Amino acid sequence: MALRRVAIDTYHENVVYLNRDCAVYRAEGFQALSKVEVRANGRKILATLNVVDDGSIVGCGEVGLSEDAFAQMGVDNGHTVSVSQAEPPESMGALFRKINGERLNKNDFLAIVRDIAHHHYSKIELTAFVVATNRGEMDRDEVFYLTDAMVACGRRLDWRSNLVVDKHCIGGIPGNRTSMLLVPIVAAHGMLCPKTSSRAITSPAGTADTMEVLANVELPFDQLSDIVRDHHGCLAWGGTADLSPADDVLISVERPLSLDSPAQMVASILSKKIAAGSTHLVLDIPIGPTAKVRSMPEAQRLRRLFEYVASRMHLSLDVVITDGRQPIGFGIGPVLEARDVMRVLENDPRAPNDLRQKALRLAGRLIECDPDVRGGEGFSIARDILDSGRALSCMNAIVQAQGSKHFNHNQPKLGALTFEVLAHANGVVTGIDNLHIARVARLAGAPKVQGAGVDLVRKLGDAVSMGDVLYRVYADFSTDLEFARQLSNKFSGYTVGGVEDLPHVFVEF
Amino acid sequence: MALRRVAIDTYHENVVYLNRDCAVYRAEGFQALSKVEVRANGRKILATLNVVDDGSIVGCGEVGLSEDAFAQMGVDNGHTVSVSQAEPPESMGALFRKINGERLNKNDFLAIVRDIAHHHYSKIELTAFVVATNRGEMDRDEVFYLTDAMVACGRRLDWRSNLVVDKHCIGGIPGNRTSMLLVPIVAAHGMLCPKTSSRAITSPAGTADTMEVLANVELPFDQLSDIVRDHHGCLAWGGTADLSPADDVLISVERPLSLDSPAQMVASILSKKIAAGSTHLVLDIPIGPTAKVRSMPEAQRLRRLFEYVASRMHLSLDVVITDGRQPIGFGIGPVLEARDVMRVLENDPRAPNDLRQKALRLAGRLIECDPDVRGGEGFSIARDILDSGRALSCMNAIVQAQGSKHFNHNQPKLGALTFEVLAHANGVVTGIDNLHIARVARLAGAPKVQGAGVDLVRKLGDAVSMGDVLYRVYADFSTDLEFARQLSNKFSGYTVGGVEDLPHVFVEF
Repeated sequence: MALRRVAIDTYHENVVYLNRDCAVYRAEGFQALSKVEVRANGRKILATLNVVDDGSIVGCGEVGLSEDAFAQMGVDNGHTVSVSQAEPPESMGALFRKINGERLNKNDFLAIVRDIAHHHYSKIELTAFVVATNRGEMDRDEVFYLTDAMVACGRRLDWRSNLVVDKHCIGGIPGNRTSMLLVPIVAAHGMLCPKTSSRAITSPAGTADTMEVLANVELPFDQLSDIVRDHHGCLAWGGTADLSPADDVLISVERPLSLDSPAQMVASILSKKIAAGSTHLVLDIPIGPTAKVRSMPEAQRLRRLFEYVASRMHLSLDVVITDGRQPIGFGIGPVLEARDVMRVLENDPRAPNDLRQKALRLAGRLIECDPDVRGGEGFSIARDILDSGRALSCMNAIVQAQGSKHFNHNQPKLGALTFEVLAHANGVVTGIDNLHIARVARLAGAPKVQGAGVDLVRKLGDAVSMGDVLYRVYADFSTDLEFARQLSNKFSGYTVGGVEDLPHVFVEF
Repeated sequence: MALRRVAIDTYHENVVYLNRDCAVYRAEGFQALSKVEVRANGRKILATLNVVDDGSIVGCGEVGLSEDAFAQMGVDNGHTVSVSQAEPPESMGALFRKINGERLNKNDFLAIVRDIAHHHYSKIELTAFVVATNRGEMDRDEVFYLTDAMVACGRRLDWRSNLVVDKHCIGGIPGNRTSMLLVPIVAAHGMLCPKTSSRAITSPAGTADTMEVLANVELPFDQLSDIVRDHHGCLAWGGTADLSPADDVLISVERPLSLDSPAQMVASILSKKIAAGSTHLVLDIPIGPTAKVRSMPEAQRLRRLFEYVASRMHLSLDVVITDGRQPIGFGIGPVLEARDVMRVLENDPRAPNDLRQKALRLAGRLIECDPDVRGGEGFSIARDILDSGRALSCMNAIVQAQGSKHFNHNQPKLGALTFEVLAHANGVVTGIDNLHIARVARLAGAPKVQGAGVDLVRKLGDAVSMGDVLYRVYADFSTDLEFARQLSNKFSGYTVGGVEDLPHVFVEF
């Protein structure tokens, strides 16, 4: 049968389209949603069957494949392919045992993760795995097996150094762009920090989205490697590197379910970092009423799981529990966050101090991984590097090397449409809802629209009078602006009260 | 925007196709797999977004809908529809709580089941629900809430009688067509038995598939109702009646995962029966080494759960644990099973005795629901009805009323292609693998190809010599025949050994 590219994007799920009148479809007793195996040129992929009743989409004698699936097949339109009922993925037995609550061993996880990475699981099977391994269903050895399998089923970078540092935050705090400060600081100190980050999944901007305002982030590995050799650091998108590919597939079902269980979080984060070649990692766990982690006992449990798995994987890990009561910095959205970052690097008086302090403390922790640095000295070394402008020079060099976009933080290209959200009472700001502010920024268009987002004017503890501006929203499209306005009209995301109402968190910083 | 039917069958999942260059797609910041709400004429449906890069499938300004979704919308091609980001289904909070292992209450289940029945859940959300309610995750009150909600979210038939009997088997035993005998027997006794059954999901034939060899099974409710009034029984397909519609949606994800947990089985079976208006149900739980239930303790646990939920739902339930060590009757596949059924009804000497005996015992149990019948008398009443030909007359009347296909069991239209599977050793048949024989029959084309399937020549305990025929396989297509042959070459499904190797089951019959 002849292959045909069907220009439908089914997002990480391979779909094959067969005409209902097709002899193969009838003879093999396929049913809609059957798993089908498509072979050509010695390569084979598995796909879910959609049955087509329109010959102009897929005719008899043709095999249609969705865009992703077509790309995986790696042959041209019209190439001869064969189709057959798929054998179920090898790891189905292990999946069924996990669904039934059994504990799996190392080989089970390897088989499952290999099938996932090779796109042998349907969305239904993926979801079943994700739900069956959620919450209390995984002991810490199983989390280790899962992490190890995720690393094993992808590429693993080797920077030929026994000190490759990285930093990661478990997420949930808008504006938390410390990586973009920390990379130039530790790189200026001479440590290798080849940072690959993700784009936003549910947030208004990921590090890759914000860095993209300043420079290209989609670089071939060889170029990245040269940049890291020359400048000790980079800030690139990790999506093309085939690092822990199963993670990307799992995220496609975790996202719509808002699933982010400890087991999945630990396996996802650590597998990506280890595959990226990191030897030392500082991990940021923010706590707050609207953060991912809401209490200290929960943060400590999560810390222990991260530490256990990291130690089994021979990764040196330093967990830092931080203040997650509100967004970090002022801007939320790619351009707004890039502006804040550049102001900190340029020691501009308008720079947000919380972003600066947090970045310095995390950078200090990483610098203390240097055997020549004494415990406690990291912070002041990081501060010297930042204050002296060496971090800025290093960042500029990295931006230049990746391909500068000539961003000017004094004239950031913000969305042309804007509105202000005002205080309805006198008092002090006692709460800023991370989730809600992130949603407003996303509705305004971030991160797709780089200049869209939210610019916070007041932060926790600031005194406000009725009518004061709490934040400004920027958008490029009027529909986006309206959606954001509707949401912020329902609830601004701010609570204003007395000083005594300020929530306390007892964290290191 | 203009509605367009996209002739793709996505099997119970609503899919909306939008062109990537479409203004709405860009402005709303949709992503592939987003949930989208499509509205027209006061009706709205939720659908999963696939992004299209080919204007001939869906152009800018068009909204494509998959076949099922288009039918639900109920308006014509070209009708104006509007599209927006969907609010998540109301019950998402309850779903997330269940995923996290919490116990849900009656209202939670009602909200979830309503969203499922209205197609508001994506395949991912459906799978999450099914996996999260699997095995030990549901207590018996939760199973009751689920069952009750499934009945409440669909149509409920009312036969205006306080004695409406039905029979159901939990499945897994090929050839087990007792319903087609039991309905005419109990109807001839004067009891109301309006049987609606399903088509095969994973088996080589469902009751509806086999009945379809004899008569039409897809009948409008009014006609069904007349037939039941005139003949006290019918044997129809239940798919169009909107009985427990959430069940059909759930099955679409349970099937690919081979999930059939006690909770889901109980809710599925009892909700369908109660929605169909049954007041008294006999439930058949077969046990055997290759049956769904493999041990007596497991059967007893399942029995107790069925009884608890039935009693909360005010359904009178009689659970019968039966011998599930091998297929029932000789034929497996629609025509072959119809032949066996008709031979039993005609008291033909070639009729399979196990099918006759099992049908009589189950019918006897149902007849004892008649307040005028003493406990223990049911079997002989049933036997008299069968032996006297009254069951046959009743069946013929029902077939006539539903629309006869003029099936002649002396000249059944079997598949034109056939091969025999022979014994490789001398001894007695000590095992017939239900699952394996069912798979051979399905590969041969059953139930789509009515005349395809397996005809057993030897049953458990029969003496065989090397070269004796164990069973014959029938097919219409040579590819089907080859697939079936390959599988039966690997393993015939039969084991031959000494008399002492026969597995014993201690069951009522």
